[in-house]
Amino acid sequence: MNELQAYFMREMPGIDAFLTAEADKLDGLVREVARHVLFSGGKRIRPMLTILFARALGRQKADVTAIACALEMLHTATLLHDDVLDEAVTRRGRSSAHVCFGTTEAILAGDVLLALANKLGADYDIPRLNALLARGIMATADGEIRELAHTRNPTADRGAYMDIIIGKTARLIETACRCGAALVSPERGLEDLAGEYGLNLGIAFQLVDDALDYTVSEDEMGKPAGGDLREGKMTLPLILHLEGLAQAEAGELLGALREKRLTVEQAEGIVRDVREKGLAEKTRAAAAGYIADAVKHLEALPVSPEREVLAQAAEYVLTRRK
Amino acid sequence: MNELQAYFMREMPGIDAFLTAEADKLDGLVREVARHVLFSGGKRIRPMLTILFARALGRQKADVTAIACALEMLHTATLLHDDVLDEAVTRRGRSSAHVCFGTTEAILAGDVLLALANKLGADYDIPRLNALLARGIMATADGEIRELAHTRNPTADRGAYMDIIIGKTARLIETACRCGAALVSPERGLEDLAGEYGLNLGIAFQLVDDALDYTVSEDEMGKPAGGDLREGKMTLPLILHLEGLAQAEAGELLGALREKRLTVEQAEGIVRDVREKGLAEKTRAAAAGYIADAVKHLEALPVSPEREVLAQAAEYVLTRRK
Repeated sequence: MNELQAYFMREMPGIDAFLTAEADKLDGLVREVARHVLFSGGKRIRPMLTILFARALGRQKADVTAIACALEMLHTATLLHDDVLDEAVTRRGRSSAHVCFGTTEAILAGDVLLALANKLGADYDIPRLNALLARGIMATADGEIRELAHTRNPTADRGAYMDIIIGKTARLIETACRCGAALVSPERGLEDLAGEYGLNLGIAFQLVDDALDYTVSEDEMGKPAGGDLREGKMTLPLILHLEGLAQAEAGELLGALREKRLTVEQAEGIVRDVREKGLAEKTRAAAAGYIADAVKHLEALPVSPEREVLAQAAEYVLTRRK
Repeated sequence: MNELQAYFMREMPGIDAFLTAEADKLDGLVREVARHVLFSGGKRIRPMLTILFARALGRQKADVTAIACALEMLHTATLLHDDVLDEAVTRRGRSSAHVCFGTTEAILAGDVLLALANKLGADYDIPRLNALLARGIMATADGEIRELAHTRNPTADRGAYMDIIIGKTARLIETACRCGAALVSPERGLEDLAGEYGLNLGIAFQLVDDALDYTVSEDEMGKPAGGDLREGKMTLPLILHLEGLAQAEAGELLGALREKRLTVEQAEGIVRDVREKGLAEKTRAAAAGYIADAVKHLEALPVSPEREVLAQAAEYVLTRRK
């Protein structure tokens, strides 16, 4: 993992400096909201992927930083709006922005970061970048909408779950990879390789996230274990759990989720069952399939240090424990 | 006014058909929200301006509709978020979208319309369009932020008021005009003429809106007279009123606005004073100056039926009574 860590160590200061400078330019009402959420321990996965693909395809100039940071801003904007929609009180172990600064400020800060990301993209004069950003935002909003509808009327439908995680997570990670490639060359074949890597990596990332939600303690994750279950979010560990229940029992649980009448004891029992039946590990196994697909798409790229780092990043997504 | 009306009659069906088709493609959760607010009696000023400038500069193809409608979507998205932020219960005489469909749905529908507008813009492969859209959205969000901060700490400062109305209204109208020009030609001189017309028209539009708020009855405007005052919004009629008060009296009123302790009777008294002192008319007179500036910038455009319609549109903004 040393190359991956070294790459992050080397690139992170440039990303943070750029984000700091952009946040400093914002109006006072939203500046602190933006800083709060931009500098709250995000892993910077999206901007790093943009930088890695741009470099892997031969761009050594520093001009990749702005589009890389645009991806982080888009991600941050969706977090701001999501936390308002989900009425989430914590994010990465800290109070959510809308709790600290108010709902109005959180919505507006999200809107400003969305606009700023589009502006940074537009400044390149490469139309493809704008198309990619717009599609990434559309897909992310669409995924959030599907998740919300699904939370209101939960089913143990794997197809619906996959549509949700592709939309809410994987498409923006795909977009980050595609933007790195599109910055270097208009050649769609290379961009598609980057996109396939990103899409598969993004799916795996969310699957692992959903597995961790059932297995990791609050201290490690910054949010309580079983949080998705308590919010009524249907993720793969819960779908696998439902698939193992008798029909009547599964129907009862779905009804309790729909009507939001799951007790704390019931929720704790389900988290325990999921752990004991190894369903988080099964979810990780599903993720491993997507990681293998992601890595396969790297093979057609020219050999470079970045190609190796991208392979390590895929491994890291699969093995991370928090 | 006949050419203006005829132009609207001719172009409106194409705009509405395009918006209907795009709304139909949206996910079920936000589709009705989008339809509700896209078809609630909006004047379609922004898309009409885009079409008029594209035609005035020689573009006769139908391909202007998408970018024109992108401007209407951006405007609609800001209305959706603004109504959530302002906790407004009515919009154009109907219940606000977040009241009918929920806050979550209204925020998400706004996000989707913002993304869709950017996607429509990106599909042209003209980088300048994306830069214009991104800047327009930034300015609009910035104006909303300034207005909110100013509502919390109101002052009778004309400069602050102008910054607010330029941001929240005029920049997007300017953007609509610039997009029409940028679609036809990369020549910045023509785009700047369109932009100057739009900026001045937009300022006048908001000034007239702020005058109407004090003079028009609920039946005509779709919202109660004096609504801005009750929301604590500092607009030019109120600034002119404050400038006419003794210092102590003005300080008392500013304090009451800041602390949101203006009674219904006090508000009605101020609305009456504004009317009796002719301050709405003074606000219209200020608007007339901007309209004159807007029309002046049309003179350098080639002669065309659209140039005449644009001149009539400017007159209409000034003389409209609702």
